[in-house]
Amino acid sequence: MSSFWFWIIPFSALTALLFAFFFFKQMMREKEGNETMKKIAHHIRVGSLAYLKQQYKIVSAIFVIIALIFSFLAFGLNVQSPWLPLTLISGGFFSGLAGYLGMRTATYASARTANAAMESLDRGLKVAFRSGAVMGLVVVGLGLLNVSGWFAILSYFVETSLPSQKLIMVTTTMLTFGMGASLQALFARVGGGIFTKAADVGADLVGKVEAGIPEDDPRNPATIADNVGDNVGDVAGMGADLYESYCGSILATAALGAATFAGSQFSADLQLKAVLAPMVIGAVGTLLSIFGIFLVRAKSDASSKDLLKALNTGIYASAGLIVVVSLFILHLLELPNATGIWGSVVIGLLTGIAIGKATEYYTSPLYSPTRRVAEQASKGPANVIISGLGEGMISSSFPVLAIVVGTFLAYAFASSDFGFGSKSMTMGLYGIGMAAVGMLSTLGITLATDAYGPIADNAGGNAEMSGLDPEVRRRTDTLDSLGNTTAAMGKGFAIGSAALTALALLASYIEALKMGMQNINMNSILINEISIPTHALTLENLMVYYQVHLLNPKVLLGIFIGAMMAFLFCGLTMNAVGRSASKMIVEVRRQFREIKGIFEGTTEPDYAECVKITTLSAQKEMLAPALFAVIAPVAVGIIFGVAGVLGLLTGALAGGFTLAVFMANSGGAWDNAKKFIEEGNFGGKGSESHKSAVIGDTVGDPFKDTSGPSLNILIKLMTMVAIVMSGVTVSFSLF
Amino acid sequence: MSSFWFWIIPFSALTALLFAFFFFKQMMREKEGNETMKKIAHHIRVGSLAYLKQQYKIVSAIFVIIALIFSFLAFGLNVQSPWLPLTLISGGFFSGLAGYLGMRTATYASARTANAAMESLDRGLKVAFRSGAVMGLVVVGLGLLNVSGWFAILSYFVETSLPSQKLIMVTTTMLTFGMGASLQALFARVGGGIFTKAADVGADLVGKVEAGIPEDDPRNPATIADNVGDNVGDVAGMGADLYESYCGSILATAALGAATFAGSQFSADLQLKAVLAPMVIGAVGTLLSIFGIFLVRAKSDASSKDLLKALNTGIYASAGLIVVVSLFILHLLELPNATGIWGSVVIGLLTGIAIGKATEYYTSPLYSPTRRVAEQASKGPANVIISGLGEGMISSSFPVLAIVVGTFLAYAFASSDFGFGSKSMTMGLYGIGMAAVGMLSTLGITLATDAYGPIADNAGGNAEMSGLDPEVRRRTDTLDSLGNTTAAMGKGFAIGSAALTALALLASYIEALKMGMQNINMNSILINEISIPTHALTLENLMVYYQVHLLNPKVLLGIFIGAMMAFLFCGLTMNAVGRSASKMIVEVRRQFREIKGIFEGTTEPDYAECVKITTLSAQKEMLAPALFAVIAPVAVGIIFGVAGVLGLLTGALAGGFTLAVFMANSGGAWDNAKKFIEEGNFGGKGSESHKSAVIGDTVGDPFKDTSGPSLNILIKLMTMVAIVMSGVTVSFSLF
Repeated sequence: MSSFWFWIIPFSALTALLFAFFFFKQMMREKEGNETMKKIAHHIRVGSLAYLKQQYKIVSAIFVIIALIFSFLAFGLNVQSPWLPLTLISGGFFSGLAGYLGMRTATYASARTANAAMESLDRGLKVAFRSGAVMGLVVVGLGLLNVSGWFAILSYFVETSLPSQKLIMVTTTMLTFGMGASLQALFARVGGGIFTKAADVGADLVGKVEAGIPEDDPRNPATIADNVGDNVGDVAGMGADLYESYCGSILATAALGAATFAGSQFSADLQLKAVLAPMVIGAVGTLLSIFGIFLVRAKSDASSKDLLKALNTGIYASAGLIVVVSLFILHLLELPNATGIWGSVVIGLLTGIAIGKATEYYTSPLYSPTRRVAEQASKGPANVIISGLGEGMISSSFPVLAIVVGTFLAYAFASSDFGFGSKSMTMGLYGIGMAAVGMLSTLGITLATDAYGPIADNAGGNAEMSGLDPEVRRRTDTLDSLGNTTAAMGKGFAIGSAALTALALLASYIEALKMGMQNINMNSILINEISIPTHALTLENLMVYYQVHLLNPKVLLGIFIGAMMAFLFCGLTMNAVGRSASKMIVEVRRQFREIKGIFEGTTEPDYAECVKITTLSAQKEMLAPALFAVIAPVAVGIIFGVAGVLGLLTGALAGGFTLAVFMANSGGAWDNAKKFIEEGNFGGKGSESHKSAVIGDTVGDPFKDTSGPSLNILIKLMTMVAIVMSGVTVSFSLF
Repeated sequence: MSSFWFWIIPFSALTALLFAFFFFKQMMREKEGNETMKKIAHHIRVGSLAYLKQQYKIVSAIFVIIALIFSFLAFGLNVQSPWLPLTLISGGFFSGLAGYLGMRTATYASARTANAAMESLDRGLKVAFRSGAVMGLVVVGLGLLNVSGWFAILSYFVETSLPSQKLIMVTTTMLTFGMGASLQALFARVGGGIFTKAADVGADLVGKVEAGIPEDDPRNPATIADNVGDNVGDVAGMGADLYESYCGSILATAALGAATFAGSQFSADLQLKAVLAPMVIGAVGTLLSIFGIFLVRAKSDASSKDLLKALNTGIYASAGLIVVVSLFILHLLELPNATGIWGSVVIGLLTGIAIGKATEYYTSPLYSPTRRVAEQASKGPANVIISGLGEGMISSSFPVLAIVVGTFLAYAFASSDFGFGSKSMTMGLYGIGMAAVGMLSTLGITLATDAYGPIADNAGGNAEMSGLDPEVRRRTDTLDSLGNTTAAMGKGFAIGSAALTALALLASYIEALKMGMQNINMNSILINEISIPTHALTLENLMVYYQVHLLNPKVLLGIFIGAMMAFLFCGLTMNAVGRSASKMIVEVRRQFREIKGIFEGTTEPDYAECVKITTLSAQKEMLAPALFAVIAPVAVGIIFGVAGVLGLLTGALAGGFTLAVFMANSGGAWDNAKKFIEEGNFGGKGSESHKSAVIGDTVGDPFKDTSGPSLNILIKLMTMVAIVMSGVTVSFSLF
């Protein structure tokens, strides 16, 4: 019976990839438009691929080095060490592949979307949305394939003395693959984020402000780099990011499932089903996402309201169905307290929706916070900055409270009616993981609505540069803004799942710790003068043994360092954007000065040079923040031991999550306050208010597209590194 | 013998107050200058006192309400309840009195300093510095008087069944008085901070930018309010703030001393000495501060370099002497491991100096971070904002690491050679408290160097408005900038001691908890099936009993809420500044429009109306953030119990501390980047760079003078509230 459940996973994975391929072919059959459109799309495609090639070259080298160092450090101390290089690199490879395929699709789709939008709005939607669906399905398809593949391989090879330990070891080893995905995602988000904002600032400042030529004008040497940035940052970066979130939530929950049902009172079959449950929910959610994607269709004379309705139909149908179907799945899997666990899944979805709605409230010009920011713009740039920062800081409260309530309920639902002593805490943590899985179960379609925004945006750029009828640009703008509305929910899911996954990963750390202890022959420990075998230690036992309580200075200091890491990371990435933008500014000024005929449009600027310079700068700048993230958990572990590491992870999670929401929402509010003014409010385009709002928007760019979203990955990456290095922490801690 | 030690404390207190009175009289004997100077000083004095009168009226009402509610809530559940109204209100009263006396002195001193500066630089220094010393000595004098007074009263009245419990109960009850001081300080910092920045922004935006009249011009209706703001924010606010820090560090350490030496293996005399130790170090440090103040003297032809040397001589002599003397004190008190505890005191001082130096590095235009911010100003306002935020975020790392290393060493020094089992953790925490006491032991003189800056600043304003020779303004500016250099260290001490005190208070919470448990007749609890009497519970026992470990969701969610509180608080105060400034802008515009003859200088603007409007607005705006701080620990305690409260406090501490350092340093860097440009760099005054830097500086104002410094108080206030309400938490927690 269990093997039936298992095979659902690769089946869904392959189905998703098949449909992705089908949608891709469908898109490729569309016409790419006239010669100018093709040429521009070609430039952008070449630039984007050149960026990714360069990025993957550097990242591959780093992966090999980290795999070697970690294998060396972990040698003999860590159960993962023989598999570590393979799992780590495969996680990174597939995460990168998801980003690559998504971006490749996007670069083919932009001109085609513009061309389709010339015909009608709904034709534009169809091309853009189906291309976004390629990304969504590639991410979940590769994720499920990778998860089920490693599960099969490790189940075949791993041997343990105690049978109940086998699944724990398999799932813990699989977390290494999660670390690979997280590391790749961090590079993609940080590198892509720096590139896109540096190019954006460079193009705007020299082109628009100094030379006075319009946005997306082909005479601006940075304009191609700007569009490349949208692809490598918003598309490839987002793909790698959500691949990491998706796999992370499933892997963390699977590991908790193995740990929760490891005692002798549970059958081996039950333990296996608890491990498979999150994967199965993801797999079925993927099939429902494909169904939802087909529901997104509109008549040829559809208004933008109809189109929004069409998108929402797809999303809510998939979400509603997974709520119903997962109840059956959990009962068919015969998990104890199946209804309670189902409650956790539903809570997860509701929490994601709540955070999404809050994001919309705080960043949409339809509501008062963004309007207040826009109003302050009429008083000057300092006021708009103060107001945006203030509103953003306040806005972090609701998502935090949503996570607090959601986590508490998910924990309560899963752990209730399940009163077998100290194990129930693990059961509650399993519920928290399931909430994250529930939130991301329909990622196939939510990511499609998220990813189609940048495609529409790029299509608009292409229309502008190719000198198409302004009506085309207006249509792509409508598509883009529709995407923004639905994407708010996608963002809520991404943020919320990051917090829940990180919480579940904290619990997985405990299991990794026990493995690490056994590996160095700590087969039993003394607690209150009673000897307890390591494999039978409860979570509470370990907390007492390692003194992981809140008055242990090691824990407190770890929490301090964790909170600090979040700020340091943001500071480094903010400054990196500034430095890279400066290089771009110098280059654009040079081209305007040295290349004759640019302004007349007789000579083409050297687009490639701009791309190259920003690429090199982004690559260089992404290294320090990423290395800090990898080194911190190892260093704190060696100095302050297990108590310090858990403090570090908790501090980074709480501080980083709040900081991430604040930055994302401030950035969003500034962006939309500017747009609101451009619509003719508070003086409209060209007024002093508008100039102030543009300054706010520029400050917001690295907030919402570089530092903010990277924080969610940082939090999980640090936890994964700590898990992988737990053996080292147990063996070597100094104090 | 112990009574000898006790009497040192009121003796030092009265000596300090006597010298404060002496310095005040000395300053009052100086000439106040010509009629214009007197008139302006009079306006500012009247405005400042009007503000304080209004503020204290509202705050008194709030204190009475809170004292009643808290007494009602705590009735029968809490040992402090009979004393609560008295101790709480006395803490608030003395904190307010310290602010009032310091500010009164400052408003008398400004014209006198300007007048003295007409004669020579060193005469100016003498008047300003001695006036600053009034504030320094009033704060420590009132603090020690209040501490020793309550200690005597409570020791006389409190009765307990177990003798060793008496001092625990006395010191825990005294923490209520700390809560009063913190609450008053929060109102002073937030209210004063909002006032000063709203007036500043209003005066600058309408006066300087719109009407084009220079800064500190008497024709600007907001100019008096601006100067009033400096007094109510920078002087009265700082006085209340440091009164709170000073008392808080002593009270927390005294409570830990009582708890650490409460077992039957210790003599009653030893316990008493451990309680008195922090007070005695503070008392002796105060005497040494007076000595240091007299060392600050310069020849009549002194250069600014000589003056800086004179200030440093005073500070370092006091600090050096307290290092030596405290070794003797601790040995004479015959505390176990006296040398180790002395190590903690020294570590505290060194940590304060390290943070001070780091603050200087990150905010002084002599070093690269501030210069980088200034350089970015040449690229536009958005760049200067991004750069200031980035540098500020990075700058939080060093102070956090200094606190981590300092705390760890202070803990290690105090707990080493002291191996009596689980008690040694309490001993280490006592060491952390002692480090905070060490840092603040010479507050008398460090606060003098901090407080004299605003006096010199106000003297400059008076010189400008009275149309004195520009040389006078240059001299007061020199004094001001000297003050900034020495004040960096004072700021380091204030920030560092806040973190250490909060850590020590966390430990005091545990003692309050035990009191609370006994009060509701929880006389023993079962841990691992063994019954332990409540009074004999160790810290570790309680951690196990209440499951205060890092994988308990209540703890994790508490940490989330704590981090969120810091951001919410900053957001509210940032927005409050924006709203109050808007009201000021409207009023100044109205006066320019309606009052004829303002521009010609023939009619005096209605200064009082500007002061009144800003006062009312600041009073209104300070309520919400303060109430959140009081309600959060009570609400979290009722919902998530002890585990949740400790999570909340830890999250607020780690997140709030990092955020506070970031905001203070970003603000400082923007301020000094502007000054650096004004000195003629990157285009100098009036250039585009300068305009951008002014925008950065305006954003930095609420960062460094409102939100940032209030956070340090917030952290401690929340902890104090939790301590006072621990009985309620124990009795009523829902989950």
